[in-house]
Amino acid sequence: MVKVAIMGYGTVGSGVYEIIRDNNFDYEALNPIGVKYILDIRDFPDHPQKELFTKNFDDILNDGEVYCVVEAMGGLHPAYEFTKALLENGKNVVTSNKELVATYGPELLQIAKDKNVNYLFEASVGGGIPIIKPMCSSLMSNKIQKIIGILNGTTNFILTEMIEKNKDFSEALSDAQKNGYAERDPSADVEGHDACRKLAILSSLAWSEYVDYKDIDTEGITKITLDDVKYADKFGYVIKLIGYSEKNDKVFARVSPMFVSKNYPLSGVCGVFNAIVVKGNYLGTSMFYGRGAGKFPTASAVVADVIDSVRHIGAKKQYLEWKPAAEGYIKPANEGVFRFFVRSQSQKEQIESLFGNVEFADGIKDGETGFITDLMTEKEFLDKANILNVNSFIRVLEA
Amino acid sequence: MVKVAIMGYGTVGSGVYEIIRDNNFDYEALNPIGVKYILDIRDFPDHPQKELFTKNFDDILNDGEVYCVVEAMGGLHPAYEFTKALLENGKNVVTSNKELVATYGPELLQIAKDKNVNYLFEASVGGGIPIIKPMCSSLMSNKIQKIIGILNGTTNFILTEMIEKNKDFSEALSDAQKNGYAERDPSADVEGHDACRKLAILSSLAWSEYVDYKDIDTEGITKITLDDVKYADKFGYVIKLIGYSEKNDKVFARVSPMFVSKNYPLSGVCGVFNAIVVKGNYLGTSMFYGRGAGKFPTASAVVADVIDSVRHIGAKKQYLEWKPAAEGYIKPANEGVFRFFVRSQSQKEQIESLFGNVEFADGIKDGETGFITDLMTEKEFLDKANILNVNSFIRVLEA
Repeated sequence: MVKVAIMGYGTVGSGVYEIIRDNNFDYEALNPIGVKYILDIRDFPDHPQKELFTKNFDDILNDGEVYCVVEAMGGLHPAYEFTKALLENGKNVVTSNKELVATYGPELLQIAKDKNVNYLFEASVGGGIPIIKPMCSSLMSNKIQKIIGILNGTTNFILTEMIEKNKDFSEALSDAQKNGYAERDPSADVEGHDACRKLAILSSLAWSEYVDYKDIDTEGITKITLDDVKYADKFGYVIKLIGYSEKNDKVFARVSPMFVSKNYPLSGVCGVFNAIVVKGNYLGTSMFYGRGAGKFPTASAVVADVIDSVRHIGAKKQYLEWKPAAEGYIKPANEGVFRFFVRSQSQKEQIESLFGNVEFADGIKDGETGFITDLMTEKEFLDKANILNVNSFIRVLEA
Repeated sequence: MVKVAIMGYGTVGSGVYEIIRDNNFDYEALNPIGVKYILDIRDFPDHPQKELFTKNFDDILNDGEVYCVVEAMGGLHPAYEFTKALLENGKNVVTSNKELVATYGPELLQIAKDKNVNYLFEASVGGGIPIIKPMCSSLMSNKIQKIIGILNGTTNFILTEMIEKNKDFSEALSDAQKNGYAERDPSADVEGHDACRKLAILSSLAWSEYVDYKDIDTEGITKITLDDVKYADKFGYVIKLIGYSEKNDKVFARVSPMFVSKNYPLSGVCGVFNAIVVKGNYLGTSMFYGRGAGKFPTASAVVADVIDSVRHIGAKKQYLEWKPAAEGYIKPANEGVFRFFVRSQSQKEQIESLFGNVEFADGIKDGETGFITDLMTEKEFLDKANILNVNSFIRVLEA
């Protein structure tokens, strides 16, 4: 039996424990998997296997029998120090910690390579949706051109409630909190930070150069109003929080609310579901859809990674490498090319003299008109918009 | 350089050749891949690498330098004999030939296991969509409960044209043929045989026991009319050709046109696109979407399998096993449980006395009413339907 340790007995960690304990999955390994330690600073005196618990990280680090460690602690510290020490000690590490992967990915992957162990993080993006592994295997025969994702279930739930039930942002947020889909402090979700880290991980994977999440222009959904939702509908769109990245010579990446055409498959992704579109030069458009969060979806992705690391005992490990990005690898935000939906109090004549023949939508808000521009760089758009009386704008997704 | 042979220089085979030749993909192997032979009975005198062509299978079989062979010949014979000989000779084989996999899968997989080589067939289902590999890896921590797929692009194109453009079946079929989406003899697609073979492969993979495609009750779309499309719309559904399988104690599998709720993600899969929903006990619903056919999508999946086999040179191969199914493993078709959409000329009173309070839709066709039953076994339904004056019926997908 292959021995595994779990660090952090919260939602994901306990889900991993339960899946392995119940062994209720379709994997008949030559080497079955068993949990030897659970690390947590809290006490679990009523746990049926309380003998597994330890508060001493060294128990895990120094136990030669522990082959794979699940890091489900979350946060950067001490998750980073623990992960690094484990990899350096030749142990495989599996994590759902997107913050850690997005921040220390290049260093931790390099250590894993040097030590011929796995550092696997399928559960860090899209919860239970298989996306990391397909990108590193099934899509390898393609040059990936674009990644377009609904990467955060909380914001997608809120936007879906706004679109389908006509709730305003704060009411929808409050309902998300009541349903357990949003934290009491929802800023990591609603400000787009969570989606940003996931987009950074996907972009680093797609092109093997590290995309630092701090370099990704990120905008949340807190300013989206029901009037925006109505304008979108009138033009044939829905509003989604989109993580978008593409590579030509450089990588362009951004997280922001976008108008998504009702004909585009991502428009139908509702509630807490996530979906990621990957465009490859040969494959064209593919999409991966499923539950982006939740105890068992996420834990099942962690356990799949554990199985993966166990499958290759004694073999040379497949490794990932995120090279440091060259200077200027990330395109500046204002070079992004979009069509823009604009709400303005200016006269239509002035709008058309600046933006040409655009389609207008009226009657949503008094004294205001909505229109969608042609494709242009963000810089060009902002220069023109500066001349107008602009209330707000939202980018339109070019799929 | 790892040497590869391609058998069959049709659409898929030539796509594989071009992708490998152009090496325009994101795989930097320690071992780059090169084509050493192309087997085809035809002559290609103007081909820039005509020295690669051979008509003699033994050239490939007996060349110790050939590590992996792509079988893109299609059909059962001689693809079966060639594949068997290659595997027995210790060569890895990659194929897009769903007919061969669905028919001889158990035997060929057993030989591959015995010889420690790969027999890989990602491209046999869903074209370029990664589905086989995720089912065999990322979803291994789940017990798969259901597979629901739009597995055939030709029929999905035809149904989409009927739904969106109000064309009748024969006009939509003729347009599919004009666009190159349907063969001159379209029966393999429109009668559901192609979807049936793919469903058999997915079901065999999901539960590791061989599901013979001949045991899957299969119905095509040739009888679907525009009136059916209108009824579906009135009840909140669209009609899709669905491959459905589930496992409780036994496996139940069938291919037929079904009413799919407009709220269900598969309803938005249009045109030649394919999508496969997999339900796992931990993951819940996940969906894989993309181009189910076409030269480069399919060839890119083949090349991904080639890369996969090359990655593990010298290592113990991961193998798949399809055990022979026990007697009675497949549930009889009439034990399937569905709701049924029925078109009938009987009186509503008679319908309700048989089926209880059902929802009716009228006004589509004179002297006829449409209704949807509660959940019942197909046997129970047919017994009741026999009493009525039933024009036709369509199953309703229970997702």
